[in-house]
Amino acid sequence: MANIHDSAHELEKAIQESDEFKELKSAYEKVMNDPSSKQMFDNFRNTQLELQQKQMQGLEITEEEVEKAKSVVELVQQHEDISNLMEQEQRVNVLINDISRIITKPLEELYGAQEA
Amino acid sequence: MANIHDSAHELEKAIQESDEFKELKSAYEKVMNDPSSKQMFDNFRNTQLELQQKQMQGLEITEEEVEKAKSVVELVQQHEDISNLMEQEQRVNVLINDISRIITKPLEELYGAQEA
Ligand SMILES: [Ca+2]
Ligand SMILES: [Ca+2]
Repeated sequence: MANIHDSAHELEKAIQESDEFKELKSAYEKVMNDPSSKQMFDNFRNTQLELQQKQMQGLEITEEEVEKAKSVVELVQQHEDISNLMEQEQRVNVLINDISRIITKPLEELYGAQEA
Repeated sequence: MANIHDSAHELEKAIQESDEFKELKSAYEKVMNDPSSKQMFDNFRNTQLELQQKQMQGLEITEEEVEKAKSVVELVQQHEDISNLMEQEQRVNVLINDISRIITKPLEELYGAQEA
């Protein structure tokens, strides 16, 4: 696994040095360094996590909770620094998904070949 | 993203050339090229998928289904080629998880730093 390990660390370094990651880092730090922004962002994340966990457990989500979640989303979308952070997160997610697709291609080809 | 793209493709190649991947490929092809092994393996995978989907949808899994799943697992564990394939799959999973942990380290450090 020596070669794989080296390649993975090289890729890690390339991610760390990418514009996408640097801009995410700067957007994240801007939000975290402003107590009111941080509180709003944490509140948004916690609301999302709660709903996700309920969904995964198959629990019913009340109309009230849906309304609350919507208003929290609207609030953060209007917040310049937080909406910027969410955009940068989205960009890095796209990047990570691209990378995942590339490195799992050998497996996809192996398992997909049989179905063709 | 040029550098990231190159590194990702280099990693893909390293995975493809690894002993882990080569052994998985050979184990997979051995099972797929034997019709009765293939049928048993497909049956095992379908049973697993069905139960996973039920769980994700929050549906109840009957005692009968649990028993059926158990007997299918016992059957494949006794099948030399299929149990070998499952071992090789497990090894490649470990490898992919190691790689994921390495390449998402910049993100983990960014998001983890705040909580420390
Ligand atoms: Ca601002
Ligand atoms: Ca055999």
